[in-house]
Amino acid sequence: MARKSNPQNETPPLNDLNKGISVRKSENFSEWYTEIVQKAELADLRYNVKGFLVFQPWSVLSMEKMYSILERVLQRKGHKPYWYPTLIPEGNFKKESAHIKGFTPEVFWVDEAGENKLPERLALRPTSETAFYQMFGLWIRSYKDLPFKTYQRANVFRYETKATRPFLRSREFHWVEAHCAHATKEDAMKQVYEDMETTKEVLHDSFGLPFIFFERPAWDRFPGAERTFAADVLNPDGKVVQQPSTHLLSQEFAKAFNVQYKDKDGKDKFTWITCYGPAISRIFASVVIVHGDDKGLKFPWAIAPLQVAIVPIKSDEALLKKAEALQAELSPFASVEIDRSEKSAGEKFNHWEMKGVPLRIDLGPKDLQNKVLTVFRRDLDKKEVISEKEILSFMQRVAKESQENLIKKADALFESRIRDVTTSAQVKEAIEAGGIARCNFCSVEKEGSYCAEVIEKEIGAQVRGTLLEKEKPFGKCVICGKEGHAVVYIARQY
Amino acid sequence: MARKSNPQNETPPLNDLNKGISVRKSENFSEWYTEIVQKAELADLRYNVKGFLVFQPWSVLSMEKMYSILERVLQRKGHKPYWYPTLIPEGNFKKESAHIKGFTPEVFWVDEAGENKLPERLALRPTSETAFYQMFGLWIRSYKDLPFKTYQRANVFRYETKATRPFLRSREFHWVEAHCAHATKEDAMKQVYEDMETTKEVLHDSFGLPFIFFERPAWDRFPGAERTFAADVLNPDGKVVQQPSTHLLSQEFAKAFNVQYKDKDGKDKFTWITCYGPAISRIFASVVIVHGDDKGLKFPWAIAPLQVAIVPIKSDEALLKKAEALQAELSPFASVEIDRSEKSAGEKFNHWEMKGVPLRIDLGPKDLQNKVLTVFRRDLDKKEVISEKEILSFMQRVAKESQENLIKKADALFESRIRDVTTSAQVKEAIEAGGIARCNFCSVEKEGSYCAEVIEKEIGAQVRGTLLEKEKPFGKCVICGKEGHAVVYIARQY
Repeated sequence: MARKSNPQNETPPLNDLNKGISVRKSENFSEWYTEIVQKAELADLRYNVKGFLVFQPWSVLSMEKMYSILERVLQRKGHKPYWYPTLIPEGNFKKESAHIKGFTPEVFWVDEAGENKLPERLALRPTSETAFYQMFGLWIRSYKDLPFKTYQRANVFRYETKATRPFLRSREFHWVEAHCAHATKEDAMKQVYEDMETTKEVLHDSFGLPFIFFERPAWDRFPGAERTFAADVLNPDGKVVQQPSTHLLSQEFAKAFNVQYKDKDGKDKFTWITCYGPAISRIFASVVIVHGDDKGLKFPWAIAPLQVAIVPIKSDEALLKKAEALQAELSPFASVEIDRSEKSAGEKFNHWEMKGVPLRIDLGPKDLQNKVLTVFRRDLDKKEVISEKEILSFMQRVAKESQENLIKKADALFESRIRDVTTSAQVKEAIEAGGIARCNFCSVEKEGSYCAEVIEKEIGAQVRGTLLEKEKPFGKCVICGKEGHAVVYIARQY
Repeated sequence: MARKSNPQNETPPLNDLNKGISVRKSENFSEWYTEIVQKAELADLRYNVKGFLVFQPWSVLSMEKMYSILERVLQRKGHKPYWYPTLIPEGNFKKESAHIKGFTPEVFWVDEAGENKLPERLALRPTSETAFYQMFGLWIRSYKDLPFKTYQRANVFRYETKATRPFLRSREFHWVEAHCAHATKEDAMKQVYEDMETTKEVLHDSFGLPFIFFERPAWDRFPGAERTFAADVLNPDGKVVQQPSTHLLSQEFAKAFNVQYKDKDGKDKFTWITCYGPAISRIFASVVIVHGDDKGLKFPWAIAPLQVAIVPIKSDEALLKKAEALQAELSPFASVEIDRSEKSAGEKFNHWEMKGVPLRIDLGPKDLQNKVLTVFRRDLDKKEVISEKEILSFMQRVAKESQENLIKKADALFESRIRDVTTSAQVKEAIEAGGIARCNFCSVEKEGSYCAEVIEKEIGAQVRGTLLEKEKPFGKCVICGKEGHAVVYIARQY
């Protein structure tokens, strides 16, 4: 645990953030990311517990909107919100053996309280299956209670041994975990499809993130899951980031916590449980990465911490008055702020571009005379002059179009990175070009793990899985040359 | 740590909650509270870590609205949202000696992570002064950065040794903590007044809770505070519950974490720090307690988990169709649910009264014929019949009036409980009648603590403090008979 501030991570002082990013995203993605997190004031890494960070207002305001969008969708689909304790007794973990084995190296343990040694260690939840399901066992009685759909908004803790990166991999992160119990395996699989739809509605349509929703191969399942599904989002360096995952859990969980119901036929049966975990703080990283450019952030309208910035280009009472009138006009429909800082016009422009505000209104004396407004759209990086009277309808058009433009651009890039290949040399080539290789594979069950290891060793990439709607193989396994039983996607993983 | 479920705390099975409360609030408040928490499905106490509970949807939905109202007000007043780590190194705590002394008996400690013993113990935050201010020390440079107003929504942990009670006193609770740094002590005191206004706007005007905002006497200050202020809300048994507190911290914190700024005169000065802590889960307890009655909860419109329940009084297609049409009409303006359960009409009525839904629409075949609606207002417990066409305007009137009615009723009760007294016998009488005694007191500085101890010992009550706008004493100290230097309020504390 480093206790000293790390000079490499020093955040510049307040109000000194107008300088753009010093490296190109396309040339040095890693450094670009480090800089944008600091310069856009998203998080401060100098907190004195390793792997933990302070989330700053600009990211929190956006993540709160992300929570609100996601929770609205979950509630509409019948999930009820809960708040579970952060602490889980060690005994709960031990009830499902694969689960404890998978999480043990990552758990923070509470041993003492006040002056007392606790009789049993308590885990800071790394995930809450073993908290939820003991309560499911108490609550669920009959087939009429099913499906039992729940979720919680929570912070979770994992003692990551890999290098941490702000938002992408921290030792504490902020997520939603949805847990549902179902009468049958078929119902549980319907939930998996619903989760996939939710991921599309929220991550893609609202946050502008393209992804592929995979079923993970047998060797890459969640500890205690019978089947694991997950969305992969692509970074510009060609590495994929795992975003929401959904698991069809093995019935071991239902048995361990006695989550049973009396069916219509009068028989007691174990439920089938699914869990779905969108990590908001990690999804925020993808928003930054997918949309941002060398000038700074670009926010989709729906999750922008601020939607409209009004910038008087010099200190002048008439300009300020106009700014206030505009703010009053637009505020019922958007979040609007006036830049009252003492910076130069150029510095203000850079500032709001770094911050990714979708729409900026630059107010100058000439515009005032001519009853026009100079507006700047961050989605297109384009200035134009419009009539004063148009501003409300213009803003509403930008709200819609900018969201669509960011999505369209991200989709096109994502699709261009997927390449169909038929040999291991081509897999390597596709991966090294920063993409995802789509190819034939002998098996995604246990027997395919040998070929997966070859890919790992020789290309440093991973088999991400198969689509939920299975695709028909179009050739032999790219590694062993045996008959292809699956079409898989291969990529490097963040 | 009890690991077994406590039979006294057993929640009834799902869908078996229509029976009203078996004791009267006015006769056995404590049991009434225990029952309403269970029967309205607010929290389940059977989670297997002592003092921790599972918050159920009906409380979470309301508390989420409470968070949203409070955060909107804080943001409007210039507070910026942050998310700090849950873990605070022991060394941070030690930097302010009064603070560590005050909190040590209540702290949960993380000692291990994975297979490793940590080099330094990490506290599960009982409050976050020592996390915020080390960052303030890094961020604040100049008088231009002040006031520096922040807050976070967070869960906090205290190893309470007193008996826990759901929502009122748990070992994990959910709050907002606002931390601000100011240039001068005067500015800091302005913040205290602002916090008092915020408490009025949020707790009183939105949640319907009457309170008095006190300055606490010298012997009852927050560990590390120079002055402590807090709002007291009254339970029906005459005990007061401390709700948001605000502290003008001693400059020891600013010195410990080097929170300095360069003033206009070029000199480096220490800031004055204030912190304000509304505990949402505890405030929710007061909402339940202040407004609830023997039939169940009563929610102020603004924070009702559900605002309108539509109850078809029997299973009938025409009724259901009508219910759906009404839901479509009202949903843009309120949250509306149709009760599709198989219960009898009477059971449904009881259910929604227990749940405290402000407006219920009971749909029967005759009403349908006559184009009228039978509506039930929970604020007045009154049924009336209105014309179908009126429903939207009626609902909007109920939204406004029911909120006002609950506030008015609570205010009247609260005021009737405050009694002016001039002798210790009268203090005792007023307290035993379940009220708050307003009286003269020798001193609220250290020298008054002797008289306060007498009150504690002989009456089992506490000196809650003085109003911020100091009142003129109207007689001698009720205990020692010396000249009264303060008008204080005395009550029993929950």
